[in-house]
Amino acid sequence: MHPFDEAIDLRASSLQVTPHEFTGSTHPSYANMVGPFGGTTSAQLLQSAMLHPERLGEPVALTVNFAAPVADGEIRFVARPVRTNRSTQHWIIEAHQTQNDISGVVATATAVFAVRRETWSNVEAVMPANVPAPEAVPRMPVKGMPAWPQRYDMRFVEGAFPAAFDEQEQAHSRSTLWMRDEPERALDFASLAALSDSFFPRIYIRRRRRALIGTVSLTTYFHADSALLAQVGSHHVLGVAKALNYRHGYFDQTGELWSPEGQLLASTHQLVYFKD
Amino acid sequence: MHPFDEAIDLRASSLQVTPHEFTGSTHPSYANMVGPFGGTTSAQLLQSAMLHPERLGEPVALTVNFAAPVADGEIRFVARPVRTNRSTQHWIIEAHQTQNDISGVVATATAVFAVRRETWSNVEAVMPANVPAPEAVPRMPVKGMPAWPQRYDMRFVEGAFPAAFDEQEQAHSRSTLWMRDEPERALDFASLAALSDSFFPRIYIRRRRRALIGTVSLTTYFHADSALLAQVGSHHVLGVAKALNYRHGYFDQTGELWSPEGQLLASTHQLVYFKD
Repeated sequence: MHPFDEAIDLRASSLQVTPHEFTGSTHPSYANMVGPFGGTTSAQLLQSAMLHPERLGEPVALTVNFAAPVADGEIRFVARPVRTNRSTQHWIIEAHQTQNDISGVVATATAVFAVRRETWSNVEAVMPANVPAPEAVPRMPVKGMPAWPQRYDMRFVEGAFPAAFDEQEQAHSRSTLWMRDEPERALDFASLAALSDSFFPRIYIRRRRRALIGTVSLTTYFHADSALLAQVGSHHVLGVAKALNYRHGYFDQTGELWSPEGQLLASTHQLVYFKD
Repeated sequence: MHPFDEAIDLRASSLQVTPHEFTGSTHPSYANMVGPFGGTTSAQLLQSAMLHPERLGEPVALTVNFAAPVADGEIRFVARPVRTNRSTQHWIIEAHQTQNDISGVVATATAVFAVRRETWSNVEAVMPANVPAPEAVPRMPVKGMPAWPQRYDMRFVEGAFPAAFDEQEQAHSRSTLWMRDEPERALDFASLAALSDSFFPRIYIRRRRRALIGTVSLTTYFHADSALLAQVGSHHVLGVAKALNYRHGYFDQTGELWSPEGQLLASTHQLVYFKD
């Protein structure tokens, strides 16, 4: 079993009191410096709606708010479909943990699921041009890094994670990289949600200095449906990320995830707390 | 009283059973073709947290999901602070309406509030250059439009709402415009939330043809704090918007709201349903 599949393997509540409750836990293969990689938590939140017996269609939008540090261990997910229409469904999802004998919300999410139809389609964003093939770009060294980056094969074309925090401020924070799960795994909605949180905090690329950071809110729009995800399979996808604004303790960054053939699979945005 | 202040004038629940409940209603000055302008609904959702007695700090992130058509009339808001930390607070907010004797969720929101600190700050996004002053750009004619665009003074530099749906497809959907409340009103978080939803659906700019559309999810990151908002006052702000991807019934668009002095006040993203 792929470690990512283990990480998002939730159990429906054994009490069967409600169809809304699922239990999962953090996974050592996706550990961050402290607690789990937020992308895995996002994927678990999404997965709790994916597994829900009343689920309609496929995800088109997901917003995760990271409310408190997630501790290593069990997480309880409560996924409620608060409105189901003919072709759309709206979710509120909460992640709860018991820490020091007190149960509290550690993350919240809202999601929109939909049954899609064929329509006029067009990619207006511009995929980076003249990017070398993944095979022509070396993989980022992961030695000494936390567990989670070791679970990704990242190949930076531009804007790599700084080899040293030399405090040489850069003109911008833009990164372009090929990325996939390591080991290889066919892309699905859960892994796309996790990949959306795998762009390193832009402040590190921009300032090349240490900072305490934490994502507070992460939004992903899924342009891909399951048929397009199946086409991508376990190939690398091209990620692009950049920051917009840093001000008074918070910055935002925006990212795009492209199929090798030039389809925009997802666009993703996040607001990050920082302390310099 | 300004019509926007009337529109966001919520009453705390008269039952006093819970501090979480507020009642408001749609306002004829912000009517859309059917039901209210979504920006006003967003502002009301945010306002219910702003008015809550346990509120901490100021909003930094807001995501609104439009779950069902909002009918003209009363709306009940339930705003719950699900996690309060030392300097951040996480909210889940629901809007309920009784339609045909059935009470249902018509919108949900999550919000992050924070107490900010001074830090290194930098605007990495690029404000459009060589934009003429608002006084040098004519106001968009609003005759024949729904009520809500008449409550904004919009002055398009580029990418105006098409004068006719001539089906001449454009190369892109980018708009640049000066915008403020009409009549003038000092900018605050609620009006910034509403402005974030005032960018016309990009598909109209791009395709110049009719389409049935509806925003399903709207995320706004507030880079401005109340001190910066006070500096802007009732001056025009510069809005920029563009689409990223249209596919199988949904497209996303992204927007920026700039102070005349070049501060990024907010960045905003939305996913829109369309039927062509």
